[in-house]
Amino acid sequence: MPQTSQKQSLFVGIDIGGTKILAAVATSDGRILARAKKKTLPKDASFPLGPSWLTERIVETAKAAMQKAGLTAKAIRAVGVGAPGPTDIHSGRVLTAVNLPGWQDGFDLGPTLSEALNIPVYVDNDVNVGLLGEHVFGAAQGLSDVVGLFVGTGLGGAMILNGQLRRGFRWSAGEVGHTYLYWPGQQPMDIEKIASRGAISRQLTSILNQGESPILEAIVSQRSDRRITSGVIRRALAAGDPATQRAIAQAQEAIAVLIASIANFLDPQAFVLGGGLVESLGESFLAPIREQAYPLFFVRHRVDEVQLLPAALGDDAGVLGAVALAMSLSRGR
Amino acid sequence: MPQTSQKQSLFVGIDIGGTKILAAVATSDGRILARAKKKTLPKDASFPLGPSWLTERIVETAKAAMQKAGLTAKAIRAVGVGAPGPTDIHSGRVLTAVNLPGWQDGFDLGPTLSEALNIPVYVDNDVNVGLLGEHVFGAAQGLSDVVGLFVGTGLGGAMILNGQLRRGFRWSAGEVGHTYLYWPGQQPMDIEKIASRGAISRQLTSILNQGESPILEAIVSQRSDRRITSGVIRRALAAGDPATQRAIAQAQEAIAVLIASIANFLDPQAFVLGGGLVESLGESFLAPIREQAYPLFFVRHRVDEVQLLPAALGDDAGVLGAVALAMSLSRGR
Repeated sequence: MPQTSQKQSLFVGIDIGGTKILAAVATSDGRILARAKKKTLPKDASFPLGPSWLTERIVETAKAAMQKAGLTAKAIRAVGVGAPGPTDIHSGRVLTAVNLPGWQDGFDLGPTLSEALNIPVYVDNDVNVGLLGEHVFGAAQGLSDVVGLFVGTGLGGAMILNGQLRRGFRWSAGEVGHTYLYWPGQQPMDIEKIASRGAISRQLTSILNQGESPILEAIVSQRSDRRITSGVIRRALAAGDPATQRAIAQAQEAIAVLIASIANFLDPQAFVLGGGLVESLGESFLAPIREQAYPLFFVRHRVDEVQLLPAALGDDAGVLGAVALAMSLSRGR
Repeated sequence: MPQTSQKQSLFVGIDIGGTKILAAVATSDGRILARAKKKTLPKDASFPLGPSWLTERIVETAKAAMQKAGLTAKAIRAVGVGAPGPTDIHSGRVLTAVNLPGWQDGFDLGPTLSEALNIPVYVDNDVNVGLLGEHVFGAAQGLSDVVGLFVGTGLGGAMILNGQLRRGFRWSAGEVGHTYLYWPGQQPMDIEKIASRGAISRQLTSILNQGESPILEAIVSQRSDRRITSGVIRRALAAGDPATQRAIAQAQEAIAVLIASIANFLDPQAFVLGGGLVESLGESFLAPIREQAYPLFFVRHRVDEVQLLPAALGDDAGVLGAVALAMSLSRGR
């Protein structure tokens, strides 16, 4: 059992994803003492599922993490949760979560978990929580104005303005994947249709199915599930696969233009880029985005001071962000 | 001389445009007691002009308004100024103003005016000031989260978040006319290249020059300067000119997509649309924008509560916004 410094507050951070639930017990300086993980859907799930099926699995995951740390609920000051949908942080209600069976019409996650765990629980949208994690413990420490862009299955976004998460009038801010590519005569298209790992995988799958990319075929055939993961994309780029290079270049250009538009409209101090694809490709993904974005910044004054940074916490952004949320919202209680 | 209610604070609001300077003396509840106006460039301007030529004209305009109100500088609590460029509100420095000779590299407008008038002077960007006017005295009263879009020579923007103007890390927030239309394979294009009165006028001028629009020709030929003003556009629409209808429809669609993108990213409570073209065309300009924008809002929760409003102050937004700025920044001094 790890030792904690005397009297330091302990928190549980929970990250609810479409495929897995992660929980961690951590100190207020972001040191993780124990972790636990469960699949979001139970193996024997029988559909349709009611809205409360998930609560039990979240509680189990949190308890498993506490147990590994040798702690009971009494030792935990507060629990933070990142949920995959817009969330009313005052009531702890997830307003909708399209990827979670039974939660489409919302779920009172905060109160339900709080009662089950007997610990105060604070819930926010997972992308807000991820950026908060980077802000408190990661790449965005000390920056009061940051836009986070997370390139994964979709394109997620969040922003911290004047040191505070911008949650929006309807708790819906940050849906940057659903800002539009538009050109006169074209139907507006969600930017995540080209600027996400999911979109790139779909494009490449279609090219594979046409037998048009032997390099990519050789790489993907090493996986029994033939999934085009961020790792497959990285190896295909390294091997010089032209279709992968084109898809990535298109995503980079769209993200660069998006960053410039946001810079011109919102004028933040920094952008933090994260998500599975960015973590996998690293600086080779970011460099062309920087190169294309900065010349499109309209006001040139102090343009060099605007930062474009890689996220630092990787997979831990969710649980550490949830810890940061619990720290921030339980303050003064 | 108008009577003011006893002991009410008086302010001067100044709106510096590329063609004219407006000044007004007003009460803290937005009642205008007197106005004055001067052309921005003197008739006998000899170029190149140094950075201080404009100060004198601004001072003259402010003094003319005070004189009309029968007041001296002693009666004025503070002066607010809207300047056509990004402005550091702490120092009163206009960082750049591309449309004003001599100001391209910035100008210490606040300190200079303050010394000349012997009154505290507060300066901000003109679009910020216009939205502040709508917030304090106009269409956006009582709303804590508002994005302003002003369709004129260009497309200007500003935003109030949590009741405060978002000025940006480099004092450059709101340059919404320089957010980008983008489509894979196309060069990114400033949205104001199609969504502004200026852009529409240029398109229509080119069509006129090709002799391709007899309806528009009949209308524009009634003006000795043949300028395609917002009024000309209104009459051409009413007369059913197809080229004008197309240009307006294109601007409306681009603005609708922009509003939806901003709604999805920033999730504000309301949008206020103003500027010469919106004032001239009114609800007939806004209705198709509403119709196209709302279906593109990604989160449907409480979508009906998000408002899309016409600005209410017209030409007075600038001077009244400057008064609101002076009120807000002189508070507690």
